[in-house]
Amino acid sequence: MALALSLGQRGQGTCWPNPAVGCVIVRDGRVVGRGWTQPGGRPHGETQALAQAGEAARGATAYVSLEPCAHHGKTPPCAEALIKAGVARVVSAIEDSDPRVAGQGFAMLREAGIEVTTGVLAEQAARDHAGFFLKTEQGRPFVTLKLASSFDGRIATSTGHSQWITGPKARRAVHAMRASHDAVMVGAGTARADDPSLTVRDLGISAQPVRVVVSRHLDIPLMSQLARTASDVPVWLCHGPSPDPERARAWEGLGARLIPCALEEHHIDAADLLQQLGQAGLTRVFCEGGSALAASLLADDLVDELVGFTAGLTIGAEGLPAIGSLGLERLESAPRFELIEARAIGPDILHRWARALR
Amino acid sequence: MALALSLGQRGQGTCWPNPAVGCVIVRDGRVVGRGWTQPGGRPHGETQALAQAGEAARGATAYVSLEPCAHHGKTPPCAEALIKAGVARVVSAIEDSDPRVAGQGFAMLREAGIEVTTGVLAEQAARDHAGFFLKTEQGRPFVTLKLASSFDGRIATSTGHSQWITGPKARRAVHAMRASHDAVMVGAGTARADDPSLTVRDLGISAQPVRVVVSRHLDIPLMSQLARTASDVPVWLCHGPSPDPERARAWEGLGARLIPCALEEHHIDAADLLQQLGQAGLTRVFCEGGSALAASLLADDLVDELVGFTAGLTIGAEGLPAIGSLGLERLESAPRFELIEARAIGPDILHRWARALR
Repeated sequence: MALALSLGQRGQGTCWPNPAVGCVIVRDGRVVGRGWTQPGGRPHGETQALAQAGEAARGATAYVSLEPCAHHGKTPPCAEALIKAGVARVVSAIEDSDPRVAGQGFAMLREAGIEVTTGVLAEQAARDHAGFFLKTEQGRPFVTLKLASSFDGRIATSTGHSQWITGPKARRAVHAMRASHDAVMVGAGTARADDPSLTVRDLGISAQPVRVVVSRHLDIPLMSQLARTASDVPVWLCHGPSPDPERARAWEGLGARLIPCALEEHHIDAADLLQQLGQAGLTRVFCEGGSALAASLLADDLVDELVGFTAGLTIGAEGLPAIGSLGLERLESAPRFELIEARAIGPDILHRWARALR
Repeated sequence: MALALSLGQRGQGTCWPNPAVGCVIVRDGRVVGRGWTQPGGRPHGETQALAQAGEAARGATAYVSLEPCAHHGKTPPCAEALIKAGVARVVSAIEDSDPRVAGQGFAMLREAGIEVTTGVLAEQAARDHAGFFLKTEQGRPFVTLKLASSFDGRIATSTGHSQWITGPKARRAVHAMRASHDAVMVGAGTARADDPSLTVRDLGISAQPVRVVVSRHLDIPLMSQLARTASDVPVWLCHGPSPDPERARAWEGLGARLIPCALEEHHIDAADLLQQLGQAGLTRVFCEGGSALAASLLADDLVDELVGFTAGLTIGAEGLPAIGSLGLERLESAPRFELIEARAIGPDILHRWARALR
């Protein structure tokens, strides 16, 4: 199952809106098939593994990181495929929360006389599929918020100088993290200040994550890196009501997708933003700031994982803060996170935190 | 030597102005004496170890974490004591930079026919004795700056609410760090806002570090915890020129020591502050903020070790910053530090950084 989960992770970031499922088929103690959900979401992991196993699947055990699907979507149900292949036993990590599956996959298998075990390494599977589950249950993607800052939590000097706070190893880790998400998201201020391309570089990946920019007024320069590359790698612009029609036309002309979102006071409502992104199919979003977008996600309790890169330098109080105003008076109301890991990465430290249950 | 160094560390924080030296005497592969510099700085580590070894010291090897002293201070020189005891060989970690010793200890031993080796675990010894060396060479103590903050580098909410950002394990580690320093230092703002006692609690130690408060105007409440306990544990107040005579008298009446320091613009000059503390005998100072004092030490490049405790909560841009204004425009001019360690401590993370060579 650990192998099936690790194979499943390979699909993260490339198979949305489908879950990234891993499957291993074992017969007589030997692995005869391995598979994971392919880019675009098809074929599913089970189909891949069964194809590899061929006749050897008969009488074998299939380890699957998620309950096999029971419904006819763009592919026939995987439960059916497992039955047809003559698998004797299915071990699954966790039940699917999609109402079209939700136990029906297991039921189909059992009816066909297949022995079904579930709940193996369920905790890790719940983490791996958290984006898919959140989208199914709450309509929004999983949100990782990454902030690279100085020892004192600053992302730039007062004049906006920010390159580079962290070292090459940390930046490389960021590219790997981008690749495991469906989309990379920044606020308009960051897009204007840093002119980032937000692509994954030097990791030899084929599919790039979608680039999402949250810009109420669509005021991102049309000469920016994002604009220039919009026809190659998707750019989605989340904007407020009635944006400037000329800007909207220009961006659409460049190939960008425009997604209107509701406002909350003067900024885009973070909850509605994520609902729109969920509707558009995203299951995992990697947000890289800036401080205003980070604050609005945190204030609405919409950050599932917090990733910090901290460098050994101090910028001082005039520097730009990593997180904008949260309007807190008491520590009790601060958004809280539980430590997942903390370690050195080159000259910097990497620390990851999971949203604490409230 | 590793044992000698570790014994030496036991004296840290209690034997200033003397160095915290550890000594192990080994004869025929057996440890016959162990010692470290005692509270108040006397007896020295060598004297302790020789007393324990007695006649067994004859022909033995003495491992000492610092070159044995050669001058008559308040005690006869240790080099003389080692010769008298008939030690055959002395292994030292590092040469003493005190001009009254600086190689003369080794010379005395060699003249008496004792075999001398030096430079064993010199790097760790240099770290352990850094405070003593800095005081000898630059007249100032070693400075550790500790800051406990939220994920985003805030030490309190906008209303000053700060208890508790970090958990009990982190706070316990802070008490152990206090105990290994000669003094704990805070700025006047922190003393007023938090009314701290700055003592070491629940660690069963006998000698408390000196409590240093940097207050230009001596405006610390006379009903504060520091004032109430000033007769039990030393309180040193570092103030600017011509403080209010009534306040000065009141604090002296409570048993506090007043240390006048030079000004640099509107605040106490950090370099002069540390020179005064060095002259008063301190070799290791543990500064716990607040943000103004932290900034003035960092701006003058006077922080030798930076200790961060980071908690899994976000306070946002309105919170109080850990480090005040440094007036930086470019990242190149930011004070830089090299990572020593990063690890989980309870629900928080602890990260330690050493001053980078510039």
